[in-house]
Amino acid sequence: MALRYFHAEPVANSLKSMIPLKEKGLEYESVYVDLHKFEQHQPWFVAINPEGQVPVLDHDGTIITHTTVINEYLEDAFPDAQPADGPLRPRDPLGASRMRYWNKFIDEHVMNFVSMHGWHRMVGVIARNVESGEFGKLLENIPLPDQRKKWATARSGFSEADLANATAKIEYAVDKVERQLGDTAWLAGDGYTLADINFYSHCGMMVERMFPELEIAVRAPRLVEWRDRMSARPGVAAALKGEDRTAPGLRTWTGHVR
Amino acid sequence: MALRYFHAEPVANSLKSMIPLKEKGLEYESVYVDLHKFEQHQPWFVAINPEGQVPVLDHDGTIITHTTVINEYLEDAFPDAQPADGPLRPRDPLGASRMRYWNKFIDEHVMNFVSMHGWHRMVGVIARNVESGEFGKLLENIPLPDQRKKWATARSGFSEADLANATAKIEYAVDKVERQLGDTAWLAGDGYTLADINFYSHCGMMVERMFPELEIAVRAPRLVEWRDRMSARPGVAAALKGEDRTAPGLRTWTGHVR
Repeated sequence: MALRYFHAEPVANSLKSMIPLKEKGLEYESVYVDLHKFEQHQPWFVAINPEGQVPVLDHDGTIITHTTVINEYLEDAFPDAQPADGPLRPRDPLGASRMRYWNKFIDEHVMNFVSMHGWHRMVGVIARNVESGEFGKLLENIPLPDQRKKWATARSGFSEADLANATAKIEYAVDKVERQLGDTAWLAGDGYTLADINFYSHCGMMVERMFPELEIAVRAPRLVEWRDRMSARPGVAAALKGEDRTAPGLRTWTGHVR
Repeated sequence: MALRYFHAEPVANSLKSMIPLKEKGLEYESVYVDLHKFEQHQPWFVAINPEGQVPVLDHDGTIITHTTVINEYLEDAFPDAQPADGPLRPRDPLGASRMRYWNKFIDEHVMNFVSMHGWHRMVGVIARNVESGEFGKLLENIPLPDQRKKWATARSGFSEADLANATAKIEYAVDKVERQLGDTAWLAGDGYTLADINFYSHCGMMVERMFPELEIAVRAPRLVEWRDRMSARPGVAAALKGEDRTAPGLRTWTGHVR
């Protein structure tokens, strides 16, 4: 049995499937894909994932993509490799459905909106550092039409209206999570699950640093307490220590870039 | 054990969880929710689903929402109730991951775009039939901000740019499905799964009637053959026979409204 994980910096999508690998104690070969060099659109990587996106899990040559799918796959393929305090996917049907409810909410209503702000601040800089003619060629290498559009928009900058809409979605999510954490210790109930890992990776970990104007400590104190509980988990801490080649001035998730 | 299923017409979301109930041969109480009367936003229904959306599964008082989540729940809760030709969710990890890859693609890149055209044609008519003042009050009853926006937009009409973008997404999906059906008999592999039910309910069943300009029979003959195989399944046929109170002139999915 051999696992390989192709990923970028330990944040967002790349972090989201790295945490379960660490939490489950699975050995894997780590392959860093340099997004600054557009490696994810280069032929060697597109041969692995035709959609040209990180992360990718390679399990004995079988390729799994999309983090929510990868994380469920790891539960199906390695059901007995679990943290001491319980499985990452609840074993009762109701618990699993609560986890999937939150995963769906985060995938569809959170991820892309935090991502837009991150792209606006960081990818915009990267994209603008490329000459126009060269940039046109880079766009041609992007397999997914939606991603091509996103890169082109990141270069010119997202509109104020789109950014304001994204912020409103993030505020809605923060308030929703805060309410849930008033009822249960973790997002999907009394146990830590893939839903917590999802929200942490895409929003909870960095929302305070990326959006100081939201005054998260005042607005969502339970979220802050939950985030600290997450960060203290050895599996999460191990994933966060992963390779990070982003130039320090471009690390939007640390709050360095506004 | 008692199941209740709250739903509207047998199309899109409401159809998507009705097919598995029929395929699995599960007895359930059928509760029709009249969207023309905005019943989904009325207090009795919002007490069941605070998000004010159909369909909803009630299993002995436990409420499950969102069709992809409901359908996985049915697999977890009733693993042995399966069609004769195999389980709706593959039992091997790779097969399940292929199914979830397609479910995610359909949920995020197909559903809302067919829905926009349906809303533009049908819900727009329904919304415009309501007086302005009355419509404002109806909007206030809609729990989800995104749904409030969608209703308001449906009344005034979606923009040409948004409709054209939605059509482009549908074309992309049709071509992607057509390619897949060149490799495998069903979307997620050799067996019929929840992924087929998802695409059929949101797009495959009615794409030819709703978008004659796409010339589906020429462009996607394998999709047409797949659709006919789906429609011929007794479970699918039983679901399609469900209650349909939409005024015939408003049935966008039959091709009556353009």
